[in-house]
Amino acid sequence: MGDVTARDVGEFGLIAAITARLPLTDVVLLGPGDDAAVVAAPDGRVVATTDVLVEGVHFRRDWSSGYDVGRKAAAANLADVAAMGGVATALLVGLAAPPDLPVQWALDLADGLRDECVVVGAAVVGGDTVTADQIVVSVTALGRVDRWVTRSGARPGDLVVVAGRLGHSAAGLRLLLQGVTEGALIDAHRRPEPPYAMGPQLAAAGATAMCDVSDGLVNDLGHIARASGVRIDLDRGALHDDEVGEADVLGGGEDHALVATIARPVAGCRVIGRVVEGEGVTLDGEPVTGGWEHFS
Amino acid sequence: MGDVTARDVGEFGLIAAITARLPLTDVVLLGPGDDAAVVAAPDGRVVATTDVLVEGVHFRRDWSSGYDVGRKAAAANLADVAAMGGVATALLVGLAAPPDLPVQWALDLADGLRDECVVVGAAVVGGDTVTADQIVVSVTALGRVDRWVTRSGARPGDLVVVAGRLGHSAAGLRLLLQGVTEGALIDAHRRPEPPYAMGPQLAAAGATAMCDVSDGLVNDLGHIARASGVRIDLDRGALHDDEVGEADVLGGGEDHALVATIARPVAGCRVIGRVVEGEGVTLDGEPVTGGWEHFS
Repeated sequence: MGDVTARDVGEFGLIAAITARLPLTDVVLLGPGDDAAVVAAPDGRVVATTDVLVEGVHFRRDWSSGYDVGRKAAAANLADVAAMGGVATALLVGLAAPPDLPVQWALDLADGLRDECVVVGAAVVGGDTVTADQIVVSVTALGRVDRWVTRSGARPGDLVVVAGRLGHSAAGLRLLLQGVTEGALIDAHRRPEPPYAMGPQLAAAGATAMCDVSDGLVNDLGHIARASGVRIDLDRGALHDDEVGEADVLGGGEDHALVATIARPVAGCRVIGRVVEGEGVTLDGEPVTGGWEHFS
Repeated sequence: MGDVTARDVGEFGLIAAITARLPLTDVVLLGPGDDAAVVAAPDGRVVATTDVLVEGVHFRRDWSSGYDVGRKAAAANLADVAAMGGVATALLVGLAAPPDLPVQWALDLADGLRDECVVVGAAVVGGDTVTADQIVVSVTALGRVDRWVTRSGARPGDLVVVAGRLGHSAAGLRLLLQGVTEGALIDAHRRPEPPYAMGPQLAAAGATAMCDVSDGLVNDLGHIARASGVRIDLDRGALHDDEVGEADVLGGGEDHALVATIARPVAGCRVIGRVVEGEGVTLDGEPVTGGWEHFS
């Protein structure tokens, strides 16, 4: 299989090979292979989010396997569902790839998507494969949600809490750029481990605002501060990480930690700051910036 | 605005400018701007489908405006929902594009997506914008459905019926390749007009199998024949089109006509063949092939 390309098996062969690797769950009323999938939404509503990963921008094939990219693409979307307080049920995946893409890479991608889905009990229910110059993996996640938590409800007096790693993915990328290819931080870059279960738990515990850290802590808390009309003051001491420098902790994205504002501490989360009157994000009271933006 | 690029306004500026153009509907419980959208699914289930359009493969910027690409990308997905017998409610859109993309192109894309959504009453509820070498537009459509129709229920004795145009988009592409730039067929290539309302109508009338024609009539009926374990025999006379040659009628995709099998004729559809015992697709009893496959 190592030398077989997408061109050799064709679109329908590729779809069949990918689909055969993807188990379904009981919320999947109709799985892949038709014009559309049908997924149960017993709450009468569905949470939906899309993220796109591009070769050379979000991943490099020499640094990440197809399997790693699959796990990372799924994680980015599953974390968004968790950040609403939801539980993901289904993924749809668009794969744009050059005709010389090894079929094995696409199968590894499917395995990675599947295994990350298994963590939350979701299933890949549909997709599309098309020709492109560069690999583009676009994933849409659907989920169920009881009480959803937006970015706009943070109130002065709330604590800022985080579950999951901050800056480990960015620190791993820095090591890869330096030629290092193995280690815990590099694993963190290849495969984020979002604390999915904390999303619904924080929602149930009364989180007033929540998001996942995909663009960097300061950037993402900036979204909450702006949407809520408040200032968020981070505590430098609480953010200290023996393994990762402060710039990565504050600006590194892609770990998909969950950050929330809430009246009282919650088990499984660290308190890293407070919501106060004002605007923007500060660190021990001083203005701070950092993070990732596309096209810049 | 004509000279402003995605690089000039940045990711968040681009998202804000796009989002401002997109009206919502009352099924949208939470629209763009958070980690995920929340959409009502009053039937307790959701139909979901993804299609990816790539610059240079599915469209060329010199032949199609951003507005046309938006309408076409939406139509491809909305037609898939209709082909299940469903009514689309929401779109999520991933846009991968080079930093020098004119912002106006992205705004035109958003307008096209919006206007095609208006035809069926759907709304754009979320998305993602990222950097890439080539424009890739990935769209996911969500919808509601009462009785859904798969590809696997065609039975010998059923009629084959079609609603919408066949081969007009392919004929238009042929003219564009010859240097012609205006006319009804070229409009058909730039903006398909799927007969969305016929999807739920055919489902309610008892369609046994249905799909949209995206890869070409013979290819797509081949999917139904294979999934249903039947042969589909097309009637050459019924397929005649004064404006379009037979090769385009049989092999041209992207018009997103709806083709179904059903026991009796339905108003608004033409009868173009019959379901019989056997396998594959035939034309007046003779084997026939044709259509589009990626990576080949």
